[in-house]
Amino acid sequence: MTGAATEAATDTGLRIIFEPAGVAAEARPGMSLLDIAIAAGVALDAPCGGQGRCGRCKVRFADPAAARSAPLRQRSNARLTPEEQAAGWLLACQTFVTDQATALAARDTAPETDQVATVLTLIVPERRAHIFPTGHAAAQPEVPSVTCNWRANPAVRTYIVEMEPPSLADQTTDLDRLRRALAQQHNISDVRAELGVLRRLAKTLREAQWRVAVTLEMRDWMHGAYLPPRLLAVRPAEAPRRDLGLAIDVGTTSVVVYLADFATGEIIDTASAYNAQIACGEDVISRIIYSQRGDGLNRLRELVVGTINELIAELVERNHVQSADIHEAAVAGNTTMTHLLLGLDPEYLREEPYVPTVSLPPRLEASELELRINPLARVHCLPSVGSYVGGDITAGVIASGMFATDKLTLFLDVGTNGEMVLGNQDWLIACACSAGPAFEGGGVGHGMRATIGAIEDVWINSETFEPTFNTIDNAPAQGICGSGLIDLLGELFVTGLVDKGGKINRHADTRRVRQGERGYEYVVAWARETGVGHDIVLTEGDISSLIRAKAAVYAGFSVLCRSVGVALSDVEQILIGGAFGQYIDVEKAIEIGLLPDQPVDRFRFLGNTSAMGAYTALLCVNMRHEVNEVASKMTYLELSADNSFMEEYTSALFLPHTDLNAFPTVKALLKENA
Amino acid sequence: MTGAATEAATDTGLRIIFEPAGVAAEARPGMSLLDIAIAAGVALDAPCGGQGRCGRCKVRFADPAAARSAPLRQRSNARLTPEEQAAGWLLACQTFVTDQATALAARDTAPETDQVATVLTLIVPERRAHIFPTGHAAAQPEVPSVTCNWRANPAVRTYIVEMEPPSLADQTTDLDRLRRALAQQHNISDVRAELGVLRRLAKTLREAQWRVAVTLEMRDWMHGAYLPPRLLAVRPAEAPRRDLGLAIDVGTTSVVVYLADFATGEIIDTASAYNAQIACGEDVISRIIYSQRGDGLNRLRELVVGTINELIAELVERNHVQSADIHEAAVAGNTTMTHLLLGLDPEYLREEPYVPTVSLPPRLEASELELRINPLARVHCLPSVGSYVGGDITAGVIASGMFATDKLTLFLDVGTNGEMVLGNQDWLIACACSAGPAFEGGGVGHGMRATIGAIEDVWINSETFEPTFNTIDNAPAQGICGSGLIDLLGELFVTGLVDKGGKINRHADTRRVRQGERGYEYVVAWARETGVGHDIVLTEGDISSLIRAKAAVYAGFSVLCRSVGVALSDVEQILIGGAFGQYIDVEKAIEIGLLPDQPVDRFRFLGNTSAMGAYTALLCVNMRHEVNEVASKMTYLELSADNSFMEEYTSALFLPHTDLNAFPTVKALLKENA
Repeated sequence: MTGAATEAATDTGLRIIFEPAGVAAEARPGMSLLDIAIAAGVALDAPCGGQGRCGRCKVRFADPAAARSAPLRQRSNARLTPEEQAAGWLLACQTFVTDQATALAARDTAPETDQVATVLTLIVPERRAHIFPTGHAAAQPEVPSVTCNWRANPAVRTYIVEMEPPSLADQTTDLDRLRRALAQQHNISDVRAELGVLRRLAKTLREAQWRVAVTLEMRDWMHGAYLPPRLLAVRPAEAPRRDLGLAIDVGTTSVVVYLADFATGEIIDTASAYNAQIACGEDVISRIIYSQRGDGLNRLRELVVGTINELIAELVERNHVQSADIHEAAVAGNTTMTHLLLGLDPEYLREEPYVPTVSLPPRLEASELELRINPLARVHCLPSVGSYVGGDITAGVIASGMFATDKLTLFLDVGTNGEMVLGNQDWLIACACSAGPAFEGGGVGHGMRATIGAIEDVWINSETFEPTFNTIDNAPAQGICGSGLIDLLGELFVTGLVDKGGKINRHADTRRVRQGERGYEYVVAWARETGVGHDIVLTEGDISSLIRAKAAVYAGFSVLCRSVGVALSDVEQILIGGAFGQYIDVEKAIEIGLLPDQPVDRFRFLGNTSAMGAYTALLCVNMRHEVNEVASKMTYLELSADNSFMEEYTSALFLPHTDLNAFPTVKALLKENA
Repeated sequence: MTGAATEAATDTGLRIIFEPAGVAAEARPGMSLLDIAIAAGVALDAPCGGQGRCGRCKVRFADPAAARSAPLRQRSNARLTPEEQAAGWLLACQTFVTDQATALAARDTAPETDQVATVLTLIVPERRAHIFPTGHAAAQPEVPSVTCNWRANPAVRTYIVEMEPPSLADQTTDLDRLRRALAQQHNISDVRAELGVLRRLAKTLREAQWRVAVTLEMRDWMHGAYLPPRLLAVRPAEAPRRDLGLAIDVGTTSVVVYLADFATGEIIDTASAYNAQIACGEDVISRIIYSQRGDGLNRLRELVVGTINELIAELVERNHVQSADIHEAAVAGNTTMTHLLLGLDPEYLREEPYVPTVSLPPRLEASELELRINPLARVHCLPSVGSYVGGDITAGVIASGMFATDKLTLFLDVGTNGEMVLGNQDWLIACACSAGPAFEGGGVGHGMRATIGAIEDVWINSETFEPTFNTIDNAPAQGICGSGLIDLLGELFVTGLVDKGGKINRHADTRRVRQGERGYEYVVAWARETGVGHDIVLTEGDISSLIRAKAAVYAGFSVLCRSVGVALSDVEQILIGGAFGQYIDVEKAIEIGLLPDQPVDRFRFLGNTSAMGAYTALLCVNMRHEVNEVASKMTYLELSADNSFMEEYTSALFLPHTDLNAFPTVKALLKENA
């Protein structure tokens, strides 16, 4: 009987089929429906990472009655409306599998000890798979303003080598024969070889009749010295080949991969997708929390590696190249993403005093990371500066050229975190502030990520208070993304619909202002204009989230400037990186006090500086030293240890700011509109 | 119907159970019974590696009648006697699985298309698992006569390090904090860290409350320069730990592992077993042939790795240590064994002009070889000199101390191949000659390996011609091993029972000389004295094999001496390594002309010089340079390209030699006996 009980505890007899994906999975006791989905590779929308806080991982059973008799236990449904509950919606992260015996006992209906296998179909609301509408990420990056000819010095190089075949009079080993020829014909000595190449070497040399193309990693650097060249591949001289590399931007939300050709230095193609880790939480904190559960860390590592490998497969197929021809990769990501990709424990990034395991990751090969390219390919992870200033920011400092300019520069990358760097070729100081997810559409009722159907820009007629907007791909509106939210708030403010404290003008003469379920709100789109079947609105609560987000960013660079004794007006250029940055309207961002009120020509949007920085490091060995140099010379200002930050933040909790004199153009505009 | 035929071709419906092991295996079409056994991990005796030449892989079905109706096809049974065939014996390597349809068609008894699964029980003659009777391999190696204090300089060292915990004022990363403390407290800088250590670092440092034991690989050498120290393990300072290493001798026949303690330099324990590759052929040539079939190379690699891992598990369990505490390994093996362990293609070792892929294997970590110790442990494979002078011989040159002596020294390692090195501290020249398997009991009717029941020494009464012998472990005689064969031939010769041409004296007054099935023979043991139930004999054919083997060895060192213009009598010491060498009787070996007729005090038996050399390289970083130095300065003399070898060989095809004057003591002995 004990044996049977144990068996019952390990086998619930329950299988779940996820629709519309049609994926079947085993349900083991203790797992949540979210766990089962993640294990089965089904991506639910779970921005909080299964903490039960966001209420997004809604699912329902095709047959709710059958589900009620299954070994399932619901922990909390506080995030669901009574209507949703009545309609059978559950939170996947809050619904747990129990063992059969417990379930039966709880229902007092035990039909003997017989276990009948139950198959339940779970309906998953549809999600969209790609963040970038076609073309957005495919733009060629700008060439950084760098002093060296950075496209002309790749580490990966191929040489044609001819050898005399061995004889009884010359029994030199295959490797030494190859080394000898490389030294004689190309003046390259002491080439290193690893098992991966050696295992095929004997056959390859003979099949090639001693005439081969040798691909080498040159100028491999370790602690102040170059190591001898390293064999990456040996192939018959006549075989088709290309020397390719990858620049990878591992973002919290999305992953972008550039496929580059070392021979030309050009980007052949790019591909991007959501980071599959999104199923385990939308922001880095949720991911870190997820990583601390059971196999969570390894699961997160596998998910992001899976995303990268899918993108590689897509690039390889679309461009008719061989994955074995990809001989090197450079990766930029924030510190958490880098830790997760490498399988490093991120727990202490989140806990005070916020310490990473490592800032400059070790020398890695693709096989260690399980990337599906030449297993010997070196993978360079760009170094971070602190727990919240990662390799994506050092990449940005490189890609923006600020490390090599004498102009006083402010570099900004705004997402869930606002990271910023101030300085020039002589000095660099960085900080990070938690802006919250508002600019990525989180924490805002009808906010969404910048995907198809997102309202991305808004204008409001100052007399009729009627809005005009555009959506991404001109699809029916689904919600409002970050750039749309900035536009909308700016417009609401300058038209007087919202006051400096973020309150909606209850007396405005428009039916778009009304009292909704969640307090006063402004209707951006009527239900009939949308693709979601309800009005899309911005509430006072949403406005408050946005103001807190923009205040954190503004306080960040205010403290940064003050810490080195310069005024915001001394900053000669303000460079904005990150996927989000590309679509901001500077004037609107100034109107709400997100960006400082400086002449518009000082601002420049650089696009995906993280991927660009990785691309630079991929193509040029000198630039790798520059990246490391940048990371090691950058001072990290910990805002939580800085008294003036809270003061600056509080002052910035107004539109555009407590001190309207710091925003002269906004002041003028308000006067004009008044 | 096509579908059904295809299915029949992939599923024979046949399963084989190997007894007495009781292992069940699936039989797929095209496999031989030997293939099935190897795949199932059942070790048959198959010295020729499945070429059908040795006739040793005999098996029989428990129910021969049932076997006859199974989908099996016998290719050749030429190596079986009519009696064996009548008794149902088969050669496993010559019996192939066909698909069911073909088998049915061939028998014209197809019972519709129904397939009935057949289970056949296959009887495997018993083999003994361990080559070394207890104690033989457990002897502590002799300390080589080396100029440096080689036990005092291991690469693996552990340091206790204390760190200040991080704070908001000091957010240095975990790795940099550890580096800083190592530099301050032990003057060790620039420590390198790989993923394996970094993944646990954050938690370990905190659990250990910032007081840890750091195990480092010091003095890691690459192309003329030391690399910075490398982290092997970080553990709480208070946790139990030991710094252990392995010296591994990968022999064609057996594998020996020494477990050493870096703190004391002592060998804690040793373990040995047959190399599981024996199932795929007894000598290197058979293994190379096997490696060229399908997945053969990978299978051979897995088999030897499996043997090593079993020995490691045995050592770990017996000594109550942790495999994770084994931080380094040194491996010596012949060139074929090293290629197979590393998964390098050995094909061209066998084909003229006999060229290895590599002589000094690359820097390896245990994880790459799948050795079950600390995955970061460095594995040093000792360098070879040529296809037939391997890392076991460079190990021997080190272990024997010949690389550091001014005495003119001849080092010999006799097994299937006779490898020999002549020289001293200033110069070294090596060659290898194929002695054939006679000294390991192969190619001799009643020959066997040196295992329990082998006749290991023999004396013959010169008047009665009656023999006296000892067997290993005093077990009932099973056959004659190498040292017994040398003794026996020497005795037969000096007692006049065999003449200088290897002919048995047909007129000797003893019933032990008789005409047997295979010509004239001498009976060493009557059936009743044995454990095999038949007389144990030595035939003229066997004698001829032995003479060819000893002639090859003698010709080898004759040519070696001649090539540098020294006489055999100039050699001041003759050092004999290898497992086999330990048990040779020098005087008998001189009598048959295997060893040169020099004063007995010039000979020294060193035991397992291969394992000893590996042990030396394991314990002392300086010795690793010496080993590489030895390998690179050793001249390899290719005998197949040397005209004088065949001449010397022909002259040595007599007992003891054509030129009896080269064997003055034998000449005197013969005169005395005459």
